[in-house]
Amino acid sequence: MMFASDNWSGASDAVMDALARHNAGFAPAYGADPVTERVSARFADLFDTDVTVLYTATGTAANALAMAACARPGGLIFASDVAHLHCDEWGAAEFYTHGMKIVPVAAEGGRMRPEDLSAALARTPDGGRFGTPTALSLTQATECGTLYTVDEVRALTDVARARGLVCHMDGARFANALATLDVAPADITWKAGIDVLSFGGTKNGCWCAEALVVFSDGALRDLATHRARAGHVFSKSRFVSAQFEGYLDDDHWLDLARHANAAAQRLAQGLTEAGVRIAWPVQANEVFPVLSRGRIDALKAHGVLFHEWSTQGCGPDEAIVRLVTSFRTTGDEVDAFLAAL
Amino acid sequence: MMFASDNWSGASDAVMDALARHNAGFAPAYGADPVTERVSARFADLFDTDVTVLYTATGTAANALAMAACARPGGLIFASDVAHLHCDEWGAAEFYTHGMKIVPVAAEGGRMRPEDLSAALARTPDGGRFGTPTALSLTQATECGTLYTVDEVRALTDVARARGLVCHMDGARFANALATLDVAPADITWKAGIDVLSFGGTKNGCWCAEALVVFSDGALRDLATHRARAGHVFSKSRFVSAQFEGYLDDDHWLDLARHANAAAQRLAQGLTEAGVRIAWPVQANEVFPVLSRGRIDALKAHGVLFHEWSTQGCGPDEAIVRLVTSFRTTGDEVDAFLAAL
Amino acid sequence: MMFASDNWSGASDAVMDALARHNAGFAPAYGADPVTERVSARFADLFDTDVTVLYTATGTAANALAMAACARPGGLIFASDVAHLHCDEWGAAEFYTHGMKIVPVAAEGGRMRPEDLSAALARTPDGGRFGTPTALSLTQATECGTLYTVDEVRALTDVARARGLVCHMDGARFANALATLDVAPADITWKAGIDVLSFGGTKNGCWCAEALVVFSDGALRDLATHRARAGHVFSKSRFVSAQFEGYLDDDHWLDLARHANAAAQRLAQGLTEAGVRIAWPVQANEVFPVLSRGRIDALKAHGVLFHEWSTQGCGPDEAIVRLVTSFRTTGDEVDAFLAAL
Amino acid sequence: MMFASDNWSGASDAVMDALARHNAGFAPAYGADPVTERVSARFADLFDTDVTVLYTATGTAANALAMAACARPGGLIFASDVAHLHCDEWGAAEFYTHGMKIVPVAAEGGRMRPEDLSAALARTPDGGRFGTPTALSLTQATECGTLYTVDEVRALTDVARARGLVCHMDGARFANALATLDVAPADITWKAGIDVLSFGGTKNGCWCAEALVVFSDGALRDLATHRARAGHVFSKSRFVSAQFEGYLDDDHWLDLARHANAAAQRLAQGLTEAGVRIAWPVQANEVFPVLSRGRIDALKAHGVLFHEWSTQGCGPDEAIVRLVTSFRTTGDEVDAFLAAL
Repeated sequence: MMFASDNWSGASDAVMDALARHNAGFAPAYGADPVTERVSARFADLFDTDVTVLYTATGTAANALAMAACARPGGLIFASDVAHLHCDEWGAAEFYTHGMKIVPVAAEGGRMRPEDLSAALARTPDGGRFGTPTALSLTQATECGTLYTVDEVRALTDVARARGLVCHMDGARFANALATLDVAPADITWKAGIDVLSFGGTKNGCWCAEALVVFSDGALRDLATHRARAGHVFSKSRFVSAQFEGYLDDDHWLDLARHANAAAQRLAQGLTEAGVRIAWPVQANEVFPVLSRGRIDALKAHGVLFHEWSTQGCGPDEAIVRLVTSFRTTGDEVDAFLAAL
Repeated sequence: MMFASDNWSGASDAVMDALARHNAGFAPAYGADPVTERVSARFADLFDTDVTVLYTATGTAANALAMAACARPGGLIFASDVAHLHCDEWGAAEFYTHGMKIVPVAAEGGRMRPEDLSAALARTPDGGRFGTPTALSLTQATECGTLYTVDEVRALTDVARARGLVCHMDGARFANALATLDVAPADITWKAGIDVLSFGGTKNGCWCAEALVVFSDGALRDLATHRARAGHVFSKSRFVSAQFEGYLDDDHWLDLARHANAAAQRLAQGLTEAGVRIAWPVQANEVFPVLSRGRIDALKAHGVLFHEWSTQGCGPDEAIVRLVTSFRTTGDEVDAFLAAL
Repeated sequence: MMFASDNWSGASDAVMDALARHNAGFAPAYGADPVTERVSARFADLFDTDVTVLYTATGTAANALAMAACARPGGLIFASDVAHLHCDEWGAAEFYTHGMKIVPVAAEGGRMRPEDLSAALARTPDGGRFGTPTALSLTQATECGTLYTVDEVRALTDVARARGLVCHMDGARFANALATLDVAPADITWKAGIDVLSFGGTKNGCWCAEALVVFSDGALRDLATHRARAGHVFSKSRFVSAQFEGYLDDDHWLDLARHANAAAQRLAQGLTEAGVRIAWPVQANEVFPVLSRGRIDALKAHGVLFHEWSTQGCGPDEAIVRLVTSFRTTGDEVDAFLAAL
Repeated sequence: MMFASDNWSGASDAVMDALARHNAGFAPAYGADPVTERVSARFADLFDTDVTVLYTATGTAANALAMAACARPGGLIFASDVAHLHCDEWGAAEFYTHGMKIVPVAAEGGRMRPEDLSAALARTPDGGRFGTPTALSLTQATECGTLYTVDEVRALTDVARARGLVCHMDGARFANALATLDVAPADITWKAGIDVLSFGGTKNGCWCAEALVVFSDGALRDLATHRARAGHVFSKSRFVSAQFEGYLDDDHWLDLARHANAAAQRLAQGLTEAGVRIAWPVQANEVFPVLSRGRIDALKAHGVLFHEWSTQGCGPDEAIVRLVTSFRTTGDEVDAFLAAL
């Protein structure tokens, strides 16, 4: 029973097929091949606007390079206090930006509120010695498996743009968000004030497919060169493009995400029925139940794979654990987990 | 007729098969999976010593991260004046090392001579304001398709180590070098004074498989963290491992390289027979003929794909062009080229 | 009435005399002059151990360079949540360390407690993706005008050293601390576990005299080169040395600090007698009274120069203001302030 | 007999007087004081245009920060192959720009020629993997004691601006250049295409007075913040301003430079009369005679202080030595040197 992470899954069949399909013959290197050009056009269709699409090896690189391209000396990045960018990326954003500071904004269930962002901005006046507000980074779906609605994204970017911030969305689980929200990709991104999106495919059925999708070229400087200098230009770019082709064709990506989300809902329902409290609303492919220490140990003994998340707001003998579903999670696996519980 | 670059080829069948073979089921992320562990052990066998193996997305990243892990403030990297690290990587080494300076050492046919390295080192005394000698980077095979023998590598690392330099080998075409030299991997690397090797698989039949192979952990600091911070830790690491498994099994990698090298020899022989001067000895999978402008234009008109390289040492109406062969280059293609000539 | 900052004062007469005294003739540049050598020896005497002394232009540079010399990729610096290093230096530490993250530790009156440091360290395990604990930075006297005793410094460095942290002391107001604590400089620094001290002279009567005093060369790497590369090597170093000579001779520095501290005590006493609450104990040359908005405005209208500090723990119509005394603050000025109040 | 460097001299009397004059009382910190404001206005008058003036601790910092403010990822700085920025600053420019590469342009007697700059630019096409041409840095007076005329500066900046480069002048010895050229400061700087000047006072009679004088704010980004983050904002800024006031009043700076230049001429004349070849025209305060090894040793034995410079173009038993004069060099000293010769 594998609920440790969605990146423990391999690649979906459609993605593997596309990889195989595009392997033959020769193709120009460094992104000048026809598959890459075709996929870039696909992204433009998907987002209903002109976009620049740049692949990177990882979501960490995508996030950090987006920050690099808007970096200023002594700049400040505002992100939620559980943002992957802040907590889980080994200081990549700080490194790529030559030392921007991340200002963690208090977030409930991973979701930042406009008033908390405003308050954080109020504490950092322009020209102050603490630093210069420069960027906002939102995660969608959040690290707690929750979502921002279109209006909520807009409310946050409104606050940010009033101070001149560049607005970034970390979409490592963008597909899972979209599958639930059921809105157009454009609505939740550039139409809601987002300048640049880390569009993740890896967690949702690709093996290595991450793209920076840039909506506002003016907001970013020299992004392509930042990426090149960081060693994130695949020479055989067509293999990433092939994955994205398989991923995007026939809404395959949304199907994969819907599957994962449904498995999460099934898990959540079973947990609730078993009287287990769930820390935050289950809106994507992650479930965060509050379990007793005894139950945690029993599940581990049973071979269930998952991570403990935090003890915030827990009783003395409890912890919040994280259960992640993916396109490969089966109903049987969920049922087996619930039985083990 | 495609002689533009070896990275225009796709992946070999054996590599694609291995990818497909390891796609099923779940595996721990970030390199903790059994395939990655097995492949690391393979590298240890291959090099006949304990090694640390770290994947990166590109050869550029591998080179630059190796430099980062031995970086010193105001440090100097000694490399040939045509080194890929210096000339073709968008300043990656400078970026990752926070501003080390690359000192280009004059090289004939891409090969640095010990006396020129000595002279360059003599011009940069320790503690001087020009900077602090820190690392040597050799490319094997070189950017001009030539090779260093074991003795030549040793002679250069002897000079370097006498000044305390860390010795790096850029092995983007390591397989092509080994296929010709016919020596043990250990002999041309750590036994010859190399501390860390960028082991490239991508140009020779993988689609994305680059590894840093570290022989002297003591010479490098925090390399794993440098890589993590740079966003070069694949979450689904097993897919790189799978490629390496297919690549290394049954000496597949050397077979691929031998094929490419043989095609280069056939090209060189045909060119020589046609009275064309070749700028440097053909020892790997690259051929650098000196062609007249008329011939260059005619070949292009014929649809032959290749890059002009330089006009150094050429007559007024000539240029050196670069022809690269790969595991996919066929004899027919070579013959067609020679006929077009 | 000037209580805005101690760096609004000029230089003391003894310091200016020393500057004039050492101006004549020629002296080797870049710190090789006899005055600099003599002053370095003075520092060794003062701290009763071998030390390396390196001047910088500012305290900000001293702090940041100390961090640079112990930097690791993805490294974490633990400092109080009001640390100058974190809040007031335009991101210098982040820049010089190529992106280390500062972890603010909750502090009461500017003073970090060992248990809070322990808790913060517990949240950042070695090898974790948040980063690698690397350094502790304590400010003495703190930004709130309070002090750490020898035992308190020791308790904090004990916690830090158990995790392998390098221990730094920001001594921008080191003289003011020493004047109150009345301990030997060695006792409160290296004997209490400090590896490197930013020894500030500027705020206390020099015009530009800041020094890094290194006790544990092994804990820092290439510090001299870090400084050189940052453009902080004065060519006419003797002028900084001259200031330090005037500053240190005959305990002039402690006399200056005692004067400033006494003025702060007099202020505090007057405020207390006037029924004003003072936010934190007055132990150096800073006083932080809680004043009503009306009083603040009245004082400003009166031409009193000072900064508002925060509203933390204040009533709705109050703020904490900061009053800083210096070697130039006169009793008359203090009395005038109290009268204006 | 001291001809080692102009930075072995102390400060001129007028500069010391100005320092003493402005020491009294209180003044706002960080450059908001009236002396600093007055001196900034002086610079505007001097250069006959609006300028931004920012002090730094050293010329190295000034040069490097100018580069930082126009930095681009993978950017290239074009400078002469003996430029101080490239050869003598411990890699500061590379550090501050996060890894820009310096492209050394061949220079005769320190002076770059437009055709050589053009050729170097032709080798680095925009978007190429070697890097992105970003800035030109000229030294005036050059490191070889020679000068660029107004037309020569203009010819170089024309070439640079055609490729969009920011044009920087390293004026560590700007006064010495101006004293000889006898042109208006505006003519040799912004009117000749210079965007930013490192205006050095230290070598010519200040003890620590270096300023970045910015003519084209648009060409540079966030320069003030770059400086702040680097720890180069003096809190007691008035002391640098005081030096500049003494330095600039009544053309004192040009008088000092004329004195030094005249001493150099006297040296050159004596050397020529003694049959000694001088490597490059003597146009500022440096003389580079070609001396036999025997003579060099004899002069050293005599206690003459100077540096050997190079052996380029020398006979087997010769070297070029560098003799630097300053405002403190006396005629007697020159005569004594010539006698010792």
